Amino acid sequence: MTTPIPDHRFLRALRREPVDMTPIWIMRQAGRYLPEYRATRERAGSFLALAQTPELACEVTLQPLARFALDASILFSDILTIPDAMGLGLHFVDGEGPKLRHPLRTKADIEKLGVPDPETDLRYVMDAVRLIRRELNERVPLIGFAGSPWTLACYMTEGEGSSSFSRAKALALDDPATMHRLLDTIARSVASYLAAQAAAGAQALMVFDTWGGLLPPAQFREFSERYLKDIVHRLKADPIAGKLPVTLFSKGANGHLETMADSGCDALGVDWTIDIGDARRRVGDRVALQGNLDPSFLAASPDAIRTEARRVIDSFGAHPGHVFNLGHGITPDINPEHVAVLVDTVHEYSRRG
Amino acid sequence: MTTPIPDHRFLRALRREPVDMTPIWIMRQAGRYLPEYRATRERAGSFLALAQTPELACEVTLQPLARFALDASILFSDILTIPDAMGLGLHFVDGEGPKLRHPLRTKADIEKLGVPDPETDLRYVMDAVRLIRRELNERVPLIGFAGSPWTLACYMTEGEGSSSFSRAKALALDDPATMHRLLDTIARSVASYLAAQAAAGAQALMVFDTWGGLLPPAQFREFSERYLKDIVHRLKADPIAGKLPVTLFSKGANGHLETMADSGCDALGVDWTIDIGDARRRVGDRVALQGNLDPSFLAASPDAIRTEARRVIDSFGAHPGHVFNLGHGITPDINPEHVAVLVDTVHEYSRRG
Repeated sequence: MTTPIPDHRFLRALRREPVDMTPIWIMRQAGRYLPEYRATRERAGSFLALAQTPELACEVTLQPLARFALDASILFSDILTIPDAMGLGLHFVDGEGPKLRHPLRTKADIEKLGVPDPETDLRYVMDAVRLIRRELNERVPLIGFAGSPWTLACYMTEGEGSSSFSRAKALALDDPATMHRLLDTIARSVASYLAAQAAAGAQALMVFDTWGGLLPPAQFREFSERYLKDIVHRLKADPIAGKLPVTLFSKGANGHLETMADSGCDALGVDWTIDIGDARRRVGDRVALQGNLDPSFLAASPDAIRTEARRVIDSFGAHPGHVFNLGHGITPDINPEHVAVLVDTVHEYSRRG
Repeated sequence: MTTPIPDHRFLRALRREPVDMTPIWIMRQAGRYLPEYRATRERAGSFLALAQTPELACEVTLQPLARFALDASILFSDILTIPDAMGLGLHFVDGEGPKLRHPLRTKADIEKLGVPDPETDLRYVMDAVRLIRRELNERVPLIGFAGSPWTLACYMTEGEGSSSFSRAKALALDDPATMHRLLDTIARSVASYLAAQAAAGAQALMVFDTWGGLLPPAQFREFSERYLKDIVHRLKADPIAGKLPVTLFSKGANGHLETMADSGCDALGVDWTIDIGDARRRVGDRVALQGNLDPSFLAASPDAIRTEARRVIDSFGAHPGHVFNLGHGITPDINPEHVAVLVDTVHEYSRRG
């Protein structure tokens, strides 16, 4: 009765093949809105212990699948694992988000960075991927992921979250050669990390460019998009990762959908600030699209969630290549029952006669 | 030697008339990046005392003009003066931004809101406008401003800042009639408040839709843009305000420039995530544009600031109707000398033979 996994509707949709119904998964689906996640996080003692212990990372990765008819699982991890493996000292301060103990402050700091070896320096991630894949037992495909070079460079130069990341921007303008060196080192690290996740069992790959949208167009092309394309090219040349669909998601960068679609990637993530039908018309049939319900809408009533989910499906239209998702991650305030309403609505409403 | 103020290059540019050089002012130009501002703020005892004491508001409004060759001044005030006048209890918690003591939680809360009378309920603002206009002594025009209905509704329902304002969004979906009632009350209040600022001496008017860009397109049109247009129509029908240029600025809403340009406004603010030349091609000669240097670029070196300022001017091109500005407010970390570099570069580079 089980569909062979390469024919799973999630992978088919990423390849723009016909599907029986629109697949759905939810960014940050293993997260604080779930009481069972909060219990495991409590038991782990810290977010970092949770992310770095393969058994616990596996446990929370699988939790949302037990509740909802989701079409994909995504490795539970943090986007800052690579800077941590480079020696920058990732840690979390309660209520303040991630911080790095040794942010990059000088050209020398950047010049001495190396490319981590995934199977040694990031072994806990690879072990988690192997364990999750085994525990999933082919129920749904597993997505591996990484942060984008620009997004990681933002954190690595700032040392923590920021609303503007003006240190990274100032470095990009004042010493572009050094910024390019940093971005190149990160891009090689991300490609190697994602290829290793593929070898460990990930069945689709995604790059999150959370802060690309903070850049003006000229700097987006030079400092973000260029390295996203570089990663896609490296992955496509890899014997294992080269067979997997790659999704790029630059939040707030809807002005760049056309050129992103030309990167050689298979799909683009789309945030909620554009009509997904407009996005589809702009990229044509070059890539699949993933998105794009406003995450805040899950705070509304079930009826409103149904209406807005149908609006997204109708806007995309009867074309292949839609993976339903939120336009960004689910937030901790959301009632899990609202997620069930969304998942069921997407499946029921999109079911092809 | 003084140019009569109606012919000042700032007002001429807003009317899309030829100018001798591109005018510039800077969002939040009276602010924490200036030591003299911090001294006055210290003397005032609190941000609220500073904003609510006309003599002090006048003092900080004029401070940046003493340092830089800016082409406009803007009333020093807060966008939450209207919710405060409606009885919601504006206050500031150090390091946390504005808060409202009585956020709107029920339909009844919304139904009992009235439209404040500017000359009684917001007398301190009108007194500040009159005093600033007198003290300016026709050096440069004075801009009056208000927050947009959607942006004020976000704060009024949430009670404080938020990255998503999901309370406002959920109300908009679950009870659109009540949200429209709220937005209509605010729109009438904003129009009356701006008309009163015009009567008190403001020479240009601006509406800041700081959070419009958080909405998906359909909801932006229904809950934000509609009320921006309503305000423009009301102002254009006013005997005094009707003669002043009106600028609308929806941050993060570049997908809506064309329809915003059809609102009857005179100019649009443009954030830094779009090439201003592309924005100009999209709106044609219907409106002037104000923007759009990335505020973070002021953290870079003077040379980089000059390069990027020239890029914005070149991108806009040799057309009438450009008011140079940042794409959003200046931040407290900026060196005031970098602002001088920007202002001088804009004037020198744009000077027409």
